[in-house]
Amino acid sequence: MSDLVTFGETMLRLSPPHGERLERTRTLDVQAGGAESNVAVAAARLGIDSVWLSKLPDSPLGRRVVSELRSHGVRTGIVWDDPEESRIGTYYLEHGTEPRGTDVTYDRKDAAVTTTVPEELPLGAIRNSEMFYTSGITPALSETLAATTERVLAAAQDGETTTVFDLNYRSKLWSPEAAREEFESLFPAIDLLVAAERDVRSVLDREGDVTELAHGLATDFGFETVVITRGENGSVALHEGEVFEQDIYRAETVDAIGTGDAFVGGFLAKRLHGGNVGEALEYGSATASLKRTVDGDLAVVTPEEVDAVVERDAGGISR
Amino acid sequence: MSDLVTFGETMLRLSPPHGERLERTRTLDVQAGGAESNVAVAAARLGIDSVWLSKLPDSPLGRRVVSELRSHGVRTGIVWDDPEESRIGTYYLEHGTEPRGTDVTYDRKDAAVTTTVPEELPLGAIRNSEMFYTSGITPALSETLAATTERVLAAAQDGETTTVFDLNYRSKLWSPEAAREEFESLFPAIDLLVAAERDVRSVLDREGDVTELAHGLATDFGFETVVITRGENGSVALHEGEVFEQDIYRAETVDAIGTGDAFVGGFLAKRLHGGNVGEALEYGSATASLKRTVDGDLAVVTPEEVDAVVERDAGGISR
Amino acid sequence: MSDLVTFGETMLRLSPPHGERLERTRTLDVQAGGAESNVAVAAARLGIDSVWLSKLPDSPLGRRVVSELRSHGVRTGIVWDDPEESRIGTYYLEHGTEPRGTDVTYDRKDAAVTTTVPEELPLGAIRNSEMFYTSGITPALSETLAATTERVLAAAQDGETTTVFDLNYRSKLWSPEAAREEFESLFPAIDLLVAAERDVRSVLDREGDVTELAHGLATDFGFETVVITRGENGSVALHEGEVFEQDIYRAETVDAIGTGDAFVGGFLAKRLHGGNVGEALEYGSATASLKRTVDGDLAVVTPEEVDAVVERDAGGISR
Amino acid sequence: MSDLVTFGETMLRLSPPHGERLERTRTLDVQAGGAESNVAVAAARLGIDSVWLSKLPDSPLGRRVVSELRSHGVRTGIVWDDPEESRIGTYYLEHGTEPRGTDVTYDRKDAAVTTTVPEELPLGAIRNSEMFYTSGITPALSETLAATTERVLAAAQDGETTTVFDLNYRSKLWSPEAAREEFESLFPAIDLLVAAERDVRSVLDREGDVTELAHGLATDFGFETVVITRGENGSVALHEGEVFEQDIYRAETVDAIGTGDAFVGGFLAKRLHGGNVGEALEYGSATASLKRTVDGDLAVVTPEEVDAVVERDAGGISR
Amino acid sequence: MSDLVTFGETMLRLSPPHGERLERTRTLDVQAGGAESNVAVAAARLGIDSVWLSKLPDSPLGRRVVSELRSHGVRTGIVWDDPEESRIGTYYLEHGTEPRGTDVTYDRKDAAVTTTVPEELPLGAIRNSEMFYTSGITPALSETLAATTERVLAAAQDGETTTVFDLNYRSKLWSPEAAREEFESLFPAIDLLVAAERDVRSVLDREGDVTELAHGLATDFGFETVVITRGENGSVALHEGEVFEQDIYRAETVDAIGTGDAFVGGFLAKRLHGGNVGEALEYGSATASLKRTVDGDLAVVTPEEVDAVVERDAGGISR
Amino acid sequence: MSDLVTFGETMLRLSPPHGERLERTRTLDVQAGGAESNVAVAAARLGIDSVWLSKLPDSPLGRRVVSELRSHGVRTGIVWDDPEESRIGTYYLEHGTEPRGTDVTYDRKDAAVTTTVPEELPLGAIRNSEMFYTSGITPALSETLAATTERVLAAAQDGETTTVFDLNYRSKLWSPEAAREEFESLFPAIDLLVAAERDVRSVLDREGDVTELAHGLATDFGFETVVITRGENGSVALHEGEVFEQDIYRAETVDAIGTGDAFVGGFLAKRLHGGNVGEALEYGSATASLKRTVDGDLAVVTPEEVDAVVERDAGGISR
Repeated sequence: MSDLVTFGETMLRLSPPHGERLERTRTLDVQAGGAESNVAVAAARLGIDSVWLSKLPDSPLGRRVVSELRSHGVRTGIVWDDPEESRIGTYYLEHGTEPRGTDVTYDRKDAAVTTTVPEELPLGAIRNSEMFYTSGITPALSETLAATTERVLAAAQDGETTTVFDLNYRSKLWSPEAAREEFESLFPAIDLLVAAERDVRSVLDREGDVTELAHGLATDFGFETVVITRGENGSVALHEGEVFEQDIYRAETVDAIGTGDAFVGGFLAKRLHGGNVGEALEYGSATASLKRTVDGDLAVVTPEEVDAVVERDAGGISR
Repeated sequence: MSDLVTFGETMLRLSPPHGERLERTRTLDVQAGGAESNVAVAAARLGIDSVWLSKLPDSPLGRRVVSELRSHGVRTGIVWDDPEESRIGTYYLEHGTEPRGTDVTYDRKDAAVTTTVPEELPLGAIRNSEMFYTSGITPALSETLAATTERVLAAAQDGETTTVFDLNYRSKLWSPEAAREEFESLFPAIDLLVAAERDVRSVLDREGDVTELAHGLATDFGFETVVITRGENGSVALHEGEVFEQDIYRAETVDAIGTGDAFVGGFLAKRLHGGNVGEALEYGSATASLKRTVDGDLAVVTPEEVDAVVERDAGGISR
Repeated sequence: MSDLVTFGETMLRLSPPHGERLERTRTLDVQAGGAESNVAVAAARLGIDSVWLSKLPDSPLGRRVVSELRSHGVRTGIVWDDPEESRIGTYYLEHGTEPRGTDVTYDRKDAAVTTTVPEELPLGAIRNSEMFYTSGITPALSETLAATTERVLAAAQDGETTTVFDLNYRSKLWSPEAAREEFESLFPAIDLLVAAERDVRSVLDREGDVTELAHGLATDFGFETVVITRGENGSVALHEGEVFEQDIYRAETVDAIGTGDAFVGGFLAKRLHGGNVGEALEYGSATASLKRTVDGDLAVVTPEEVDAVVERDAGGISR
Repeated sequence: MSDLVTFGETMLRLSPPHGERLERTRTLDVQAGGAESNVAVAAARLGIDSVWLSKLPDSPLGRRVVSELRSHGVRTGIVWDDPEESRIGTYYLEHGTEPRGTDVTYDRKDAAVTTTVPEELPLGAIRNSEMFYTSGITPALSETLAATTERVLAAAQDGETTTVFDLNYRSKLWSPEAAREEFESLFPAIDLLVAAERDVRSVLDREGDVTELAHGLATDFGFETVVITRGENGSVALHEGEVFEQDIYRAETVDAIGTGDAFVGGFLAKRLHGGNVGEALEYGSATASLKRTVDGDLAVVTPEEVDAVVERDAGGISR
Repeated sequence: MSDLVTFGETMLRLSPPHGERLERTRTLDVQAGGAESNVAVAAARLGIDSVWLSKLPDSPLGRRVVSELRSHGVRTGIVWDDPEESRIGTYYLEHGTEPRGTDVTYDRKDAAVTTTVPEELPLGAIRNSEMFYTSGITPALSETLAATTERVLAAAQDGETTTVFDLNYRSKLWSPEAAREEFESLFPAIDLLVAAERDVRSVLDREGDVTELAHGLATDFGFETVVITRGENGSVALHEGEVFEQDIYRAETVDAIGTGDAFVGGFLAKRLHGGNVGEALEYGSATASLKRTVDGDLAVVTPEEVDAVVERDAGGISR
Repeated sequence: MSDLVTFGETMLRLSPPHGERLERTRTLDVQAGGAESNVAVAAARLGIDSVWLSKLPDSPLGRRVVSELRSHGVRTGIVWDDPEESRIGTYYLEHGTEPRGTDVTYDRKDAAVTTTVPEELPLGAIRNSEMFYTSGITPALSETLAATTERVLAAAQDGETTTVFDLNYRSKLWSPEAAREEFESLFPAIDLLVAAERDVRSVLDREGDVTELAHGLATDFGFETVVITRGENGSVALHEGEVFEQDIYRAETVDAIGTGDAFVGGFLAKRLHGGNVGEALEYGSATASLKRTVDGDLAVVTPEEVDAVVERDAGGISR
């Protein structure tokens, strides 16, 4: 029995060296990136027994992703697809420098994962885990995946499993309207909702201050916990009527991609270790700040480093 | 009016550093590769005014390909596709080391080029060029492209343009039977056929020694010239009844990919410069041997270097 | 007929990786750099049909420069010199870090370009272009080039061509007095003058506030347009009596070299596209700010990116 | 219950880029290397559930080793030592080029693993595994480890576990005499002995042709199986009185380090999959030949690749 | 006769590229680093005839250190140890990014230098030099070295040599109590003490404002000069009753390691060139600020660059 | 008093990574290369106290050369030239791959060294050294240097110094006729002549078998020793009437540049250590074969490695 099971797409992330443009580059750095595996990696590194489920082509590229995730201690449950008939999603990332923005070019259409049906997944294992996590990207990838997401969440709810969902709205995948409809149909099966304040307003079409947003969501959909992330303004959680607030920890950003997933991974790790929601917010924020200092989607951190940030004892040279 | 127009797909070629495995790599070298642009580059570098036609997404990746080809002096005629709705083909290349073979993983399905219709192409320019070249890969990529290939060859034939076709059979794209049927329907519009001996036997299903193969093809389909490449055994050409033979030039192979296209580019360049078929075989072989010494699909050579190989005056240190 | 023709020297730019010292480095990054080709590249990338004229040794180093410029869409008109008898200028660039300045070591003496005579240049093409651009570096390189600059500007004036001149005073090439004398002899042939405020004061030996400087120059030499760049303080233009002012756009600087040329390239592109002088200042400033974010002399930007900066809609992560 | 458990030291392997000398290098490639983990990785990649046991400092360097091994699917059972009080062994590898030999500089003294006592190891898990493997390096590292090796082999013998031992004599660690005495005291607990012919002669001080060597060892110490590796001359096995011979598969060598461990890993994998000793020799040889084509200690291969070598169907370009 | 002799340990410094984590890295940058050689390099580069004394294994790693130091003009006096029996200290450096600190992992135990006895050192040369420098790291490394440090300082005092000592307290090597006891026993042989204010308070257990600290030390131990460094707050020196204060020069930090040694090297160089203590503080501070802009332990600077910082004439682009 | 003094030009050697073409490269490897410093480095590494004399610009590029040479233990006597008024010679090296030759592009005209006059050189030190070495490149670089070479050789002859001269004919610098005239005027001042057989025939215009060539030279010009190198055919020496022959040692060539200089460096080192001419040929050949295995102009070898080659005990893996 594992502590955390996640399900979703992981892509090859291909990015030119910092300061070079994609149009001109002769080399691309290769890494694995995807919300659900990012969360699994963060949690695994912070001491949680984590499993990532997905479908991949049985090719060097598919193995590339699995070996990177395994190196962080994540266990993987992969449906291996025929490499001649399937592909892996990729995304090209060009880091920005003010005033030039960071540019993400997706090439993820028809990835192997988009054909995953519930029968291919270990529903029993999901049911027996403490927590199950997926994000709003998963149902956006294909109709098949939207149906599968629904079924998997239902299976998780059958057990004692806490279901966790991060909206992760991606405008390059669908419209706010389509996303809202899908999200609201999934919400009844969700125990813990994570959402960016911006998405709550523009996708879920809600108004009010951040506390009102949280209360409204909890009331309307029966979430046990609502966590709203607010960028530079920190985060807010509503749990069984109680409100928790957390500032961000200052960080010099090497790579912002994956910060939100590191936050979730840290939050869930602390909850699974028995921390309360306020402690989990703090721990998630510290994990996120450390993620920013590392290149790649993944939160390559240790529990000791997160603790040092929480205790404001980080920095300097230790020798 | 240009000397040579080519039409076909060019992909991003992504390869780990020599000696590293794709499954483990953290960086990929990026280059542009595709039979028709490879031929255009070789010819352009050898003094021919060359144009490459294709369709690409209007994205950094599409511009990446165009800028690399332009840097070699190729002019480009691109149909720019909506980057949100289209993709560029990619291929992953892992160099082999005996006894481990070189491995090519294609991810080229649904590339922008596969939707090209004749109306998008500058048929007048094709008609007005000296030569037009495409390969057997183009009609294999989609039904639309098969129809377009036919139309474009017909347009070229309307003018005084010499039409050139290299079989380039790819077993990962279609069966020998499907390829044969398509090839034979295109042959009547072809003036100069280039084919590997292996493909003449196994795809076109013909028998006999190599001269018999060439005579048979010329007789059955009315080619003005037939060039048959024989790997380590050199090449043979049949032109208006006359047979020419050519050995290969020895080379230490850094990268074998693109050798056949370099051969064709050199052959066509010499023909366009007024050389006879025997001289063209010689020039093409020398170009191919130099290609082998350079990493990437492209024949980064100069006319002086090709001449030195032909005159067996190459090698050593010049200082 | 092209939109913009430029003439001048382009060097090999050799620089150690950021953070390493030239004295210690084991690798040098290689790029092409020179005011006139920098301007041609910026304009070409922003949609202008641009031609760069120069003289280079017919060597791998000469071809290196041409292929880089062509990859950005610049057409090149090169006088190829005997590689045994000529050389290409080089410059070594060590990026600074406060309090250590950026250090430029020129090795450009006796470069092939310094022997260019008017007869080697396509004066007809210059006469038929919309605009002709050269900078104050060109006449500083040799007496031959000073005479050639004069003749070429005269030829351009014979046509309808707008002549553009950027002072670009380089203290390592000549004294302020020598530069001033040369500049003032060329001014009657110039329609659009670009100059750094600092150079107007110390080289042209003029006083007053920036508007007075512009009026004084326009009055004394009959320029149609005077553009004065003021570093952090933005830029000012005087055009047919009207004054335009423009702030800079904030940028994080990866590489400051070439910023001024990007400004000019953007300015001229907007003018050639029909924009007024105010719009051109704005567009040039945005191009310059983007240049700062990219390593190398060249403004590797797209029209969409420049528009986004002008509309203050740049930055963030788009996914 | 796992298929294969191994126990031994794994070091950081630090090597300058190919063709550079250690004395001059500015960068070192970092990999994990050690006979027992090399064997575990080869076996895991070939489908065997493999566990590696060791002791490491709880530091980034210790985690570096574990994450690399885990990425290949090996499970790890680590005794984590106080990072302030312990160190990890390292070795510096300079690749040779004829006539310059490959140079290995060990810095492995007092590594954490040398203090491992039996109580720290999961003896039950060893007892319950199909096979247990360690090499002659382990008892050479410290007196403590010599005693532990003895205890662990005894524990394995208590179960049904097949015990496997590769002599792996290292002249930089001990004298032939000391090694022989230690080896012979361990032999009674060994079921399968692997040894280089050279070591059988010079360390175990035996004579005769290779078959006589194998028979002599089997007779004197009661090994179920004796495998003798003979470098370019292939390998020979004696199993329950039957002799098997195997040639090597030709390979172009990128990195020879770890070839012997790849052979053992392939041999054991085939045995655990039910192959007979002859098939295992074949499979081990093929695995070893592929290892030679890859940089690093580890056999980064797939079962399909090993099968292709055995079936002499490898090489060429597949596309 | 040399100007400056230093004695102490120099290690191999191994660090992942900036922005990568040690746990994940595949390459390590290699440099030489140690307080006493850092000081010798800074001084040598600033025109001082400098000698560094130490003991190293006669291996590629030992030669690696010597060749790097010699390249900066330092002369070396090395006791070469048997490479099979000795090792070189190493340290792993992971650069931090806020809020992640810089992490130093030492692996320096039992380094060859720790066995150095006075008889192995050229005491005559030390006696004949203008200055002798060692730091508080040396006696912390072994009891043998503590005794040797005492003897060497005594020998230096016998001559006219000015003895210089930088506390350089390292908490990973010993306790404040042990360090204090050792330091105070050495102080009588010291002419010039350099110490961080922080160490004066916590290790030497003294109180008061910084001037009081300096006066107290001078009074209690008879130092001719006391220099106290105060991080961001600059530095203070007390020399024959006179107090000098110096602010830091602002710098963008690429690598903070070695800044203190650069300060000392600059200070001593100016003193040896005849500058007074105030000028030396200024020169040392400028050297330190330049060190921060360069990767590695060493102050790769020129006298001209230090002068430019002192004269506040640095920065900008010179061309 | 030093053992060996050399005088000549050293250039920056700029080369693209192996397998990349100069025309396309984005990075150049930087090293120092020149016959006279190559010889000094080889000798210094083999235990000879060696000094290299030259003139360089006082710039980062000049210091780059000096620091590389010093790192190998060579002492340097440099005339530092005004960096604004002088330059350093450079050469661009593109490694060949059969059938593509290795290409050297010199850019060495007007290098600082070409203005060296005898008054700038420490003639006394030359006079007091055991040996003085320069090559036929030096007088080819300028008329000034030709005169200086003559004066320096005369000064050396005044002392007891053995004068050594390697023809090193470079066809890119002068004609065979001009070279012959200059060489023959210098020969009376030479004690030991080294020459490639090819140059003896085509430049010195001599005939006969190799022994006849040596005898003829010795007779005509009074050389004490004549060494003729014969490429793959080894080398021959004539010393006081006795003939010595030496085969080459087989080597896999990573970089052939500098092989001849390594031979000379090894030969001279052995002579200075008291070896006879036959031993010196053997030692020089072994040094040359090791040089081939290392990238760069310099023989990065140790005495132990050269001895191992001589004793045919090299190769394999030592662990």
